[in-house]
Amino acid sequence: MTDSNWNLKNQARQQRLQRASRALGDSLQGKICSTDKASSLLEAVLQVGDRVCLEGNNQKQADFLADALVGVDPAQIHDLHMVQSVLALPQHLDVFEKGIANRLDFSFSGPQGARLARLASAGRLNIGAIHTYLELFARYFVDLTPNVALIAAQAADEHGNLYTGPNTEDTPAIVEATAFSGGIVIAQVNELVDSKTTRLPRVDIPADWVNFVVPAPRPHFIEPLFTRDPAQISEIQVLMAMMAIKGIYAEYGVQRLNHGIGFDTAAIELLLPTYGESLGLKGKICQHWALNPHPALIPAIEAGWVQSVHSFGSELGMENYLRARSDVFFTGPDGSMRSNRAFCQAAGHYACDLFIGSTLQIDLHGNSSTATLGRIAGFGGAPNMGADARGRRHASPAWLKAGQEARQGRQGAAGTPRGQKLVVQIVETFREHMTPAFVDTLDAWTLQEQTGMDLPPIMVYGDDVTHILTEEGIANLLLCRTDEEREQAIRGVAGYTQVGLGRDARMVENLRDRGIIRRPQDLGIDPRQATRNLLAARSMRDLVQASGGLYQPPARFRNW
Amino acid sequence: MTDSNWNLKNQARQQRLQRASRALGDSLQGKICSTDKASSLLEAVLQVGDRVCLEGNNQKQADFLADALVGVDPAQIHDLHMVQSVLALPQHLDVFEKGIANRLDFSFSGPQGARLARLASAGRLNIGAIHTYLELFARYFVDLTPNVALIAAQAADEHGNLYTGPNTEDTPAIVEATAFSGGIVIAQVNELVDSKTTRLPRVDIPADWVNFVVPAPRPHFIEPLFTRDPAQISEIQVLMAMMAIKGIYAEYGVQRLNHGIGFDTAAIELLLPTYGESLGLKGKICQHWALNPHPALIPAIEAGWVQSVHSFGSELGMENYLRARSDVFFTGPDGSMRSNRAFCQAAGHYACDLFIGSTLQIDLHGNSSTATLGRIAGFGGAPNMGADARGRRHASPAWLKAGQEARQGRQGAAGTPRGQKLVVQIVETFREHMTPAFVDTLDAWTLQEQTGMDLPPIMVYGDDVTHILTEEGIANLLLCRTDEEREQAIRGVAGYTQVGLGRDARMVENLRDRGIIRRPQDLGIDPRQATRNLLAARSMRDLVQASGGLYQPPARFRNW
Repeated sequence: MTDSNWNLKNQARQQRLQRASRALGDSLQGKICSTDKASSLLEAVLQVGDRVCLEGNNQKQADFLADALVGVDPAQIHDLHMVQSVLALPQHLDVFEKGIANRLDFSFSGPQGARLARLASAGRLNIGAIHTYLELFARYFVDLTPNVALIAAQAADEHGNLYTGPNTEDTPAIVEATAFSGGIVIAQVNELVDSKTTRLPRVDIPADWVNFVVPAPRPHFIEPLFTRDPAQISEIQVLMAMMAIKGIYAEYGVQRLNHGIGFDTAAIELLLPTYGESLGLKGKICQHWALNPHPALIPAIEAGWVQSVHSFGSELGMENYLRARSDVFFTGPDGSMRSNRAFCQAAGHYACDLFIGSTLQIDLHGNSSTATLGRIAGFGGAPNMGADARGRRHASPAWLKAGQEARQGRQGAAGTPRGQKLVVQIVETFREHMTPAFVDTLDAWTLQEQTGMDLPPIMVYGDDVTHILTEEGIANLLLCRTDEEREQAIRGVAGYTQVGLGRDARMVENLRDRGIIRRPQDLGIDPRQATRNLLAARSMRDLVQASGGLYQPPARFRNW
Repeated sequence: MTDSNWNLKNQARQQRLQRASRALGDSLQGKICSTDKASSLLEAVLQVGDRVCLEGNNQKQADFLADALVGVDPAQIHDLHMVQSVLALPQHLDVFEKGIANRLDFSFSGPQGARLARLASAGRLNIGAIHTYLELFARYFVDLTPNVALIAAQAADEHGNLYTGPNTEDTPAIVEATAFSGGIVIAQVNELVDSKTTRLPRVDIPADWVNFVVPAPRPHFIEPLFTRDPAQISEIQVLMAMMAIKGIYAEYGVQRLNHGIGFDTAAIELLLPTYGESLGLKGKICQHWALNPHPALIPAIEAGWVQSVHSFGSELGMENYLRARSDVFFTGPDGSMRSNRAFCQAAGHYACDLFIGSTLQIDLHGNSSTATLGRIAGFGGAPNMGADARGRRHASPAWLKAGQEARQGRQGAAGTPRGQKLVVQIVETFREHMTPAFVDTLDAWTLQEQTGMDLPPIMVYGDDVTHILTEEGIANLLLCRTDEEREQAIRGVAGYTQVGLGRDARMVENLRDRGIIRRPQDLGIDPRQATRNLLAARSMRDLVQASGGLYQPPARFRNW
């Protein structure tokens, strides 16, 4: 066998580059492709059956390249296998509808979940699997390596050096896997600079790793996904936030944590400098975060609560604030933030003591899921954050205490002492339209049947959940010793849902006596004090003010 | 509060840079520091109490900067907190002995384990924690961010762009955390090129992220840690490898995996193209690897067994082979490999179905550890690889089968169906000097007492281990339903050790009837066929030959 048979990938890359060169002629200057030739570039570079990563992140979207991909001729380019984090844009599904792609591996589909379900059941695409982000990145280096990556950056120079600005997000993981496996990397950029006259603010991705740069006709889309208007936080959410702070954060001394998206967690962030301060907790909890730059965290940062925040991605409008608070956020010498979803997910998995997030359904085992009928939504980072990191070996007081509670009295392998991650599900017992959050059976089971998945799409498994927090109280599942106790602990905080009404009142009182269930009054919390006045900011305007005018919310959040 | 109070880290960086500039004068040209001024540079840049990452990887060592750090004046620079993966060189401990550093967070100390234990018990250093690699990297972005990183690269240009060659290893994780948190990055390089006349083969780390480059007087040290001479593989190891392939790999259809270091796993690699081929397993197992470029994998690669290998680091002597087999390994457009420990550990955690590795001690719960009395060795990547990835959500046949075996008949949260990672401990019942591998109590417990650690240093927890493989057979712990069954399954493969002799013979036969214990004959393996003739290479010379002369082993492995 000659050596050339072992370098087929590099040969294929050369052929792709040559095809692009032939197809584009003068429209290609070095690595720079004319904006109007983006689809031609893709047609030249792509091959039938390619694995393609079209950068769709939680925030940043390679939307112009998405358009270009939708614009290729399906007769020529088809059967693509899309491997991308997020399906956020209509174009992400148009490629399946148009017959350009037919396979999909992904992490999160958010707003496209219902359409994705329709396309899947119509047989227009075959879903390989739904992943947690870090898991998908991991497979980029094993068995889902992209042949072509279509990514987005803020700016490039003519060599192909890329500046991503604060929204670095998934880009390094995607590009590294593709560039070092004979693949082709194409970047859309908002701005092209001439390195002879202008330096990029910094280099986020070296030019060697990038094959083509296409100036986009408009800046890439960024979704302000983590912005929550404090005006919409309810007093029940304030009460639940008080319980989280006093009953969990203070109880375990949680210093390193991640918050899921939502008003529940925004309420916690906004109570730190008020309620948290009144409990004397400053410096004792919440100093280190793996978190996107949530605007709701501004008052806590300004009050000196926060030492560091490492971010998966950025948040629109926070750019100047990040720059002015570089001690707290990871920023480059140029002053702008560097986010990195891969490292931040690793931080969430291995360096955080607590994850708290919301869900749509919880069953009697504590399994929870946001998968509901008619939607294939995925879970993003939640499974990674919301799983005990069993490889972890460093101790912290919070982790040790949780582990001790979980192991006490257990025998055998399960009794071997170790720590445990705190995984909290925070939910009101009824969601919108009085849909109960507690159910006998998750929709996930029906979804599995309908779609032929190997397993029901459960977001966080019950044996990884340590606490369930509702307006009725906190259930500490770590202390439960039998399935029956666990079930009653869950029923005991499930309020007036059918699940809650089905409780064994006597057993629930017994669990309360043992501290497994704790009501607000058990925690010394007076629900009458749970008013919106406790929020350190009660409107978007308050947040802007707290930031000294540095935070500049997107227009749709401005109502003043 | 003025904004300047929120940019103290960047101000500190400017001050460090200015101090360096003043101290070094003409010895500093741009970012390039004269070789003989390395210690002066460190004295100028470092501050008392700094967190310092002195790049000590599994293979690559920033040994010249280690010398320079040992050479700083302890009266001026002291109380450093070292945060580094591996303590491999004497200098890594000299800094503690000389009073330059006094705190340590790390992952692996290998050959320095005994000296580390002596220094710790003499109170010369305070060990924060022992981590698995990815966990330590994660903490670089949360609460162990380095102020100064001392790293090693193959070459740099005058701007500070770095080329790491195949040994990229930990460098990207270290540099990203440091450069984006106001820290200082100093690189020792084997070679300095002038970008006006010579291009670096590729850029692994962009110049923006690097503050100083010091040409080293000799190439950085690289340890060929993963090279095992096939001549030293015993026939017992061949037998165990046959059991692994037929009884586990084939049984579960394992396509994506990681092998720990050692002769046991080298034997498996060398049996794939012979014994594996005879079982018709080519294409059915072992196509994707998260693995350093083990020379023992050459025959399997040459026989077409392997589709891809992503690597933590490289292996000395494999450079030309990697270049010539770029379809299999992750290589840059320049032809040389790009390794990346962070991504490869993520791949091992989330994208592999099986980890197999050896250990020194296993107890009756299945807990295993390489920590033995008088040594503080750490575990490197094993806890990460050897833990069930509970955040994983994509299915594979191997993972589903393991999960089904584990969950069958279980109730409640524990019974909710999901997959499970295969974690195999492969050991001979007696180690060197007839020390039993099976023990009633791990040394880890005594170590915990002696050192005051929060927990016993267990490498892989018993409830994550799925199979124990010895010369006596395979114990499938997934199928055990009680602590007692687990104990007897372990005793049942523990041979003539005290633990093995303590078995309940009737219960063990019952476990064998149920397929929980499988002897070679149960697998249709005739131990008489387990000869060294089955190895696809029986010497280093055979490996070189199999590689077509591309593999060039270091001198100490050449005996012809």
